[in-house]
Formats: sequence, structure tokens, C-alpha cells
Amino acid sequence: MMCGRQFTEDESQLLQEIIINRRDVRGNRFLSTPLDEADIEKILLAAVNAPSVGFSQPWEFVVIQDENTKNIIKDSFQQKNNQASNHFSTEKQALYQRLKLEGITDAPINIAVFYKPSTQPVLGQTAMPEMGQYSVVCAVQNMWLMARSLNIGMGWVSILDPHCVKKAVNAPKPHQLIAYLCLGYVDAFLPQPELEQLQWEKRKQLNSVVMNEKYVDC
Amino acid sequence: MMCGRQFTEDESQLLQEIIINRRDVRGNRFLSTPLDEADIEKILLAAVNAPSVGFSQPWEFVVIQDENTKNIIKDSFQQKNNQASNHFSTEKQALYQRLKLEGITDAPINIAVFYKPSTQPVLGQTAMPEMGQYSVVCAVQNMWLMARSLNIGMGWVSILDPHCVKKAVNAPKPHQLIAYLCLGYVDAFLPQPELEQLQWEKRKQLNSVVMNEKYVDC
Repeated sequence: MMCGRQFTEDESQLLQEIIINRRDVRGNRFLSTPLDEADIEKILLAAVNAPSVGFSQPWEFVVIQDENTKNIIKDSFQQKNNQASNHFSTEKQALYQRLKLEGITDAPINIAVFYKPSTQPVLGQTAMPEMGQYSVVCAVQNMWLMARSLNIGMGWVSILDPHCVKKAVNAPKPHQLIAYLCLGYVDAFLPQPELEQLQWEKRKQLNSVVMNEKYVDC
Repeated sequence: MMCGRQFTEDESQLLQEIIINRRDVRGNRFLSTPLDEADIEKILLAAVNAPSVGFSQPWEFVVIQDENTKNIIKDSFQQKNNQASNHFSTEKQALYQRLKLEGITDAPINIAVFYKPSTQPVLGQTAMPEMGQYSVVCAVQNMWLMARSLNIGMGWVSILDPHCVKKAVNAPKPHQLIAYLCLGYVDAFLPQPELEQLQWEKRKQLNSVVMNEKYVDC
């Protein structure tokens, strides 16, 4: 007999539903209703139960409610977002400028997630040093799913200057910003990712991204 | 009324159980029992429903069963692992050498997960280019949880040369190896992470990694 908790088919099916119904939530959806402390703790507990290379747990979380801090970070978003739209074709630029791409001041809670490099060698990180950052990303994905299961929306804002965030929360020099997250209740979880719905990008078919044994020379 | 699937407290509790019972599985636990095709597809479907920056879905998966390929990659592990143990203190080296840190040839299925960089600018990736790789890591974490809910063990092998894996599966030059995964049924899911149990590293307390508003100068 196998040791450890056995999950049923229904339970696995439920996980699939949580995964499929998870959305990246932006400012046009967030409600200002405060989040329950107990729910924030559940989300953070999901984070720290993520896998980490060599059990190094190299993550730190700054929970932000202060309007001042949010405004500083929103400024950084605006600056980077103005630069960003130039990267796209004229056709896409018009759509880009209509998109609401963050919910920094709309969401009641922001969480800045940092990677804290170890001062000692870490088991499993000697050949692939990026495993430290990847461990922190696993924690973020756990947070995302846990938030969704609590009917709380989460958005990941990547259009900003990581150094500006570090400065705003007084992060130690060696720390690296991995994710800037906005969390709050929402008026709706969209049935599809917004960028799919707006046809910014098409969904890829599973068989187009899965190879059997090897890539075929083309 | 909010649109979108509403999850209950019990359902959220179940997700927490899956998260907490997930383990990094190594070769000493894998059974050679083949995996069901339908289960592999569920795991891959969980992957492609991960969040991705700008809905870019920048992931590709190579499903490996071929013993030849596994042996090439196991050689790469062995080489990197021999180099790795020198990084640790004399005391830890003895323990390191007793650890079984991969299940490449023990697990029936290996999956190499790649990041395929876009040739076009990607929404949300202009200020933080690493968001592409991070999207692929989110997919890996979805796979891990889905595998666990199917009572399938998964291990992430990071002690290897990514270029060797690329070569072994004939991956295109621009692709970057993010994760090399071993999957299979197991004789046990350990009650704790093995490295915690063996006291290689201590578990961090939640309050030691969560800051309120800002880091305090020290």
C-alpha cells in the first residue's frame, strides 16, 4: 500500500477547475473591499509550501497597503508602460493603449515577492543558478491558485522597474524582485484570459507544444 | 452577483492539502509502472493553462521514454553531481553523497520543459524580460500539483548541463531548458520534504519571511 494522502478522481478534477478558472486580474475588475487577514495568511501559506531548490525557501514577501507606496509603484508602471507601447505594431498600439494592465491602486493588497540569494551554496543550484528565482516563481503560482480558490483575484504586474519597487519597500541590496502582485475581490472572473478574448494572441493547441522523444529537424 | 465559478471553503481546503502533500520525488521512490496516457495529458493540460506573460504561452514539452536519451542525461547528472558535492562543507559532503537526487532512469516518463523565446515583442515582457522564463516555471508548478492530485510523483532535476539536454532532444538553438522532470507512480509520498526530514535545511517560519509594508533598516 502506498503511504501518503491518496486523492480521488473528483479531487483531481477540482484542481483542474481551479487551474482553468484562474485569471490574471487587472484594475478594471478589482473591488476595494478589504481582504480577510485569514485569507491573506492562507495565500502566504500556499506560497511557503511551494517546492524550493535544496529546500532553500529563498522567498520574502512584502505586504503593501500603504497608498504612498502604491502611488510610487504606479508611477513606475506608467513610465515603463509609456515606453512599452512603442514596441508594438501601429495596429496593436491602439489596442495596447486601451488595455488596463495593472491594478496597483485599485486592489486593496499588493505583495512584492523577492528572491533572497543564499550566502552559502545551495543543493541543486550549483549547475543551474536560476533555480533560486524559479523556486520563488513556484511560490507565486501557488499563491495564484490559492487566491482563485478563495474567489480572490490576483494580477502580476511586470511592466515596472524592479529597482524602483526595491527602493520603495527598502529591500536589501542582494534581493531580486520576482513578482509584484495585486490582490482583491473582483466583480468577475472572465471566462477566458482577456488577451485571448480580445484576440491579442491565439491559444496554442496542446499538440503544437508537445514533442514525442525529440524535436524533429526541420 | 459575481460572474465566474465560485469555490467553496472545502474546495479551497482541498487545494491546500494538495499543495502541502506535494513532494519532490527522487529515484528511491519511483515505481516502473507505466503512466496512463490520459494522466500525462491531464498533467500537460494543467501546464498549458498556466498564466503566461502577454498570453504568449512560451512553453514546449518533450516527453521522453527512450532509455538512450535518459542515459545521456543521467551521465550529465553524474558529471555535474560529482562537481557539486565539493561546494559543501566536509560535514555536509558525507550526507550529500548519500542522497539520491534524481530519478531519471527510475521514472517511466521524463519531460524536458523549454522556454521558446518569441521573435516578436511580448506584452508585459518589455520591462522584465525574464517574465518569459517565469511563465514556463508557472506551468511546471501546475504540472507538479496536477501530478500530485493524480497520486503521481514528480521530481525536478536541476543538477545537469542544460546544453546536454538540449542536444539530447535536438532542441532548437534559441530554446532554453527550464526544467527536467521525472514522473511516475511512487511507493510513498514522504510526510515531509526529504531535506527537511534529514535536517539538511530547517523550515522557515512564515513570520520570518513576511514583511509589513517595508523592510526595516537593520
